Amino acid sequence: MFDKWFEELAVGDTRSFAGVTVTEAHVVGFAGVTGDNYPLHMDAEYATTTVFGQRVAHGLLVLSLGAGLVPMTPGIVAALLGMEEVRFVAPVFIGDTVHPEMEVLETTARGDGPGRVRVAERILNQRGEPVVTAVINVLVNRRGAGDGG
Amino acid sequence: MFDKWFEELAVGDTRSFAGVTVTEAHVVGFAGVTGDNYPLHMDAEYATTTVFGQRVAHGLLVLSLGAGLVPMTPGIVAALLGMEEVRFVAPVFIGDTVHPEMEVLETTARGDGPGRVRVAERILNQRGEPVVTAVINVLVNRRGAGDGG
Amino acid sequence: MFDKWFEELAVGDTRSFAGVTVTEAHVVGFAGVTGDNYPLHMDAEYATTTVFGQRVAHGLLVLSLGAGLVPMTPGIVAALLGMEEVRFVAPVFIGDTVHPEMEVLETTARGDGPGRVRVAERILNQRGEPVVTAVINVLVNRRGAGDGG
Amino acid sequence: MFDKWFEELAVGDTRSFAGVTVTEAHVVGFAGVTGDNYPLHMDAEYATTTVFGQRVAHGLLVLSLGAGLVPMTPGIVAALLGMEEVRFVAPVFIGDTVHPEMEVLETTARGDGPGRVRVAERILNQRGEPVVTAVINVLVNRRGAGDGG
Amino acid sequence: MFDKWFEELAVGDTRSFAGVTVTEAHVVGFAGVTGDNYPLHMDAEYATTTVFGQRVAHGLLVLSLGAGLVPMTPGIVAALLGMEEVRFVAPVFIGDTVHPEMEVLETTARGDGPGRVRVAERILNQRGEPVVTAVINVLVNRRGAGDGG
Amino acid sequence: MFDKWFEELAVGDTRSFAGVTVTEAHVVGFAGVTGDNYPLHMDAEYATTTVFGQRVAHGLLVLSLGAGLVPMTPGIVAALLGMEEVRFVAPVFIGDTVHPEMEVLETTARGDGPGRVRVAERILNQRGEPVVTAVINVLVNRRGAGDGG
Repeated sequence: MFDKWFEELAVGDTRSFAGVTVTEAHVVGFAGVTGDNYPLHMDAEYATTTVFGQRVAHGLLVLSLGAGLVPMTPGIVAALLGMEEVRFVAPVFIGDTVHPEMEVLETTARGDGPGRVRVAERILNQRGEPVVTAVINVLVNRRGAGDGG
Repeated sequence: MFDKWFEELAVGDTRSFAGVTVTEAHVVGFAGVTGDNYPLHMDAEYATTTVFGQRVAHGLLVLSLGAGLVPMTPGIVAALLGMEEVRFVAPVFIGDTVHPEMEVLETTARGDGPGRVRVAERILNQRGEPVVTAVINVLVNRRGAGDGG
Repeated sequence: MFDKWFEELAVGDTRSFAGVTVTEAHVVGFAGVTGDNYPLHMDAEYATTTVFGQRVAHGLLVLSLGAGLVPMTPGIVAALLGMEEVRFVAPVFIGDTVHPEMEVLETTARGDGPGRVRVAERILNQRGEPVVTAVINVLVNRRGAGDGG
Repeated sequence: MFDKWFEELAVGDTRSFAGVTVTEAHVVGFAGVTGDNYPLHMDAEYATTTVFGQRVAHGLLVLSLGAGLVPMTPGIVAALLGMEEVRFVAPVFIGDTVHPEMEVLETTARGDGPGRVRVAERILNQRGEPVVTAVINVLVNRRGAGDGG
Repeated sequence: MFDKWFEELAVGDTRSFAGVTVTEAHVVGFAGVTGDNYPLHMDAEYATTTVFGQRVAHGLLVLSLGAGLVPMTPGIVAALLGMEEVRFVAPVFIGDTVHPEMEVLETTARGDGPGRVRVAERILNQRGEPVVTAVINVLVNRRGAGDGG
Repeated sequence: MFDKWFEELAVGDTRSFAGVTVTEAHVVGFAGVTGDNYPLHMDAEYATTTVFGQRVAHGLLVLSLGAGLVPMTPGIVAALLGMEEVRFVAPVFIGDTVHPEMEVLETTARGDGPGRVRVAERILNQRGEPVVTAVINVLVNRRGAGDGG
C-alpha cells in the first residue's frame, strides 16, 4: 500500500500482502520486548484452563505483524497518526499463519504537504478468517514534494 | 488496573504505572519481531532528513510497552477486545522514558460472566507529555466465577 | 513478595506465583544474551547421548525466570545482595512449565534504612516437583522512608 | 576451565577468561527472556532517584554472562549442580566490561563416574573490581569414560 | 532487485536500496543468534587494543543486513545458490549506517524453469565507502510459471 | 581452528566442531536481526507450495552458525578478510542439527605481522550431508607478536 505516493492512492484500492507464521519465538520475543508476560500468552498449563484451551498470541503482536508485512517504500509514509475500531475478533494460536489485507477508505489532501489516508485493515488467518480488523490513519507524502514527514 | 476483578473496578478509578526507557534495543527488537523495518525507525541517516530529525520509536511499540507496564494478575483479564481512538500524538525518541496512566470510563456487567471494561489510557513521556492515547476494551473476570475468558 | 515493604513482611509468609512455559525461544534467547551455547542446551542430537536424553534448559535461565515471575513493586527492592544454597535439583526440559514459591526465612532491620530479608525460593515444574531451590538475600525498603536503595 | 576433563583439574588451578561489554541490548534482552523488568534495570528516570544514580544490570545477567564466557568443551560438563555464596558485591552499569576468573577449590572423585568440582568464581569489571563472586559446584566427566552426565 | 521476475531482469540493471544503522542491539543480537561472541565484536575494552580501536560489527552481520534490505516479492526468489568473492573491505562500527547496491552481471535461462542470476552487491557506509562486496548467485522464478523453487 | 596462532596452523590440518540444532527461534531471530523476512523462511503455509515443502533456514544463518561454532581464542583472529565459493548445497530445515568442519588449505606469511590463512569449511547436517560449503580467508596473528589485527 505504502509503496505508492499520496497522489497514487485512490479510494477503493485494495491490496493483499504476504503472510507470516506466528511462532513461539514471536510470542516469547514480543513478550520480551514489551514486558507483557500475561500467562494467557506465556503459560501453556494455565492456558488449558481458559476458554481458549491453549496459549494465545498477543493481539498487539498480531496487529504489529500486520504492519510489518505491508511493504513501505522509504520516504512515502510520513507518520502513523492513529487507529480506530481495532477489534481482536478471533484468537491467533501458535502455528497460525496470518496476512493483512488493506483497502483505502478515504484520502484527504492537505495543500501541498503530505495527505491523510484512512485505510481499513483486515488480518486473516490461514483459513481466511479475520483475526484483527482496524482502521488506520496515515500521513502519506506526495512524490517529489520533499519529505513532509 | 487489571490486578482487580470486575466487581472491584469503578468508573473514575485512575492509576499510574511504572515506566520504561525506550532504548535502541527496544526499537531494533520490535522491528525484528514484527518485521517493521521502516527507515524512520531504523536508519539514523535517513531520519535526520525528516521533520523528526532522528529515529522515532514505532507507535505500536510504545502502545505495546504501555500494555506491558500494567500489572495484570493472572486470571483477571479474560480477553482484550479492542481499542478505539488510538492517537500517536507525539514522537518517542530513543532514550525517552514512557509510562502509562489509566482511567476506567465504563463497566458493563454481562450476567454472571466476565464484564466489559472501557479504559482510557494515556502514555506519557519523561516530561509528562502524552505520546499515545487510546481507549481500550477489555473483558474482565469476576472473582471466583471461574475463568470466563 | 516484593510488592510489600520491609515492615509488611513477616517470617513465615509464603507466596506462590504465576508460571511460564520454558520454550525453545527461551533457551535459544538465553544462550544468545549470555553466550552460554553449551551443547546440552543447544544440540538436540548431542543431548540424546546424555543421561538427560534431550536438551536441558540452562539452570541459570530457570533461576532467572523464577525472579521474573515475582511481582516487584517499583521502589520496594533496594538491591539483590546474594544467594545461598542454589541447587539445580532436577532438569527442566523444553515445554515444561515452571513457577516459583517463596517463604520469608528472616527479616533483619537495620536502623531506619532498608532491611535485609532472607527468602527461601523453590521453583516447581508442572508436576509440582522442585527443579531449583535457593535462599535469596534482598535489601527491602521501608514504606515512605525514601529510596534507601 | 571446563575444556579439561575431571582428572586434568587440580585444586588451586586458576584461569582468567575473555570479557564482554554489558550493553543496553544485554539488559533489555535479559529482561525480555526472563521477564524481570524491574525499573532499576529498565527505567533510566527512576534509576537516577536511587543510590546507584543510573540503571544497573541484573545481577543474574552478570552471573550468567560469567558462565557464558567460560569455554566449555562439549561432553566435559555433565551437569551444573548448584552455587553457594553468590554475592552481588558491586553494581554493573551499562557500558561496563566484565570477565570471570576461576579457581578450583576442591575435586571429589565418585568411583569411575563424573567427579564433583567446586570452583570459586570472581567476575571483575574493567577496573579489576569484583562485581559478583560465587562458589559453583559442577559435575565433570572423565576422559573417555563415556558421558556420565 | 528481487521484486522482478526472471524475464524482467537484464544485465546491467542497477539498484540502490534503503539503509539501516548498525546498532549495539544488532551486534549483540547477531552474536546471540549465531553464537559468534568473538571479543572484537563484544568487548569494548579489548577492541581498543586492536588496530580498529573499537568494536567492529561481524562481517556476516553486515552481509546479512544487506540481504535484509533488498525487497523480495514472495514467490520470485526460488533459492539462494551461493556467493563468490565476498570481501570484507572495511570495518563497520556501531553507529554506522549501511545500504546495499546491486547490479545484474549475468542471467542464464534454464528451459522454462527458474533462471540463474548473478548479481554484484556492494554494501556502502554513510560516507559512500564500500564495506562489503560480493557476487551472489540466485535462482529466480519466471512470472506465472508456478513456483520452480 | 582459531584457538591456534598462525605459526601453529599447517596446511592439511582438519578439525570438526560441536553442533547446534536450528530452531524456529534461530530462524525468527535471524530474520529479526537482519530484516530478511522472505516467506520461504517465515510463512509455513507458503513454504508448503514450494519444492522444499516446508520453511527453510536462511543460508546466511547456517553460514553464520558455522562461524559461531568454531572456538576462537581472543587475540588470534585479526580479521575476517573474505569468502570464496560459498555454496548453499542443501536446504536446512527447522529441527536439523548442523556442525562445521574445517581444513587449512593455505597459509601465507606476511613478514612478522599476522598471516593469511585459507580454510575450507563444510557445514554438515545430522545425516552427515553437506549443507553449506565455503572457502574462508582469515588474517591470523602470530603468538606474542602483539595484536596485528
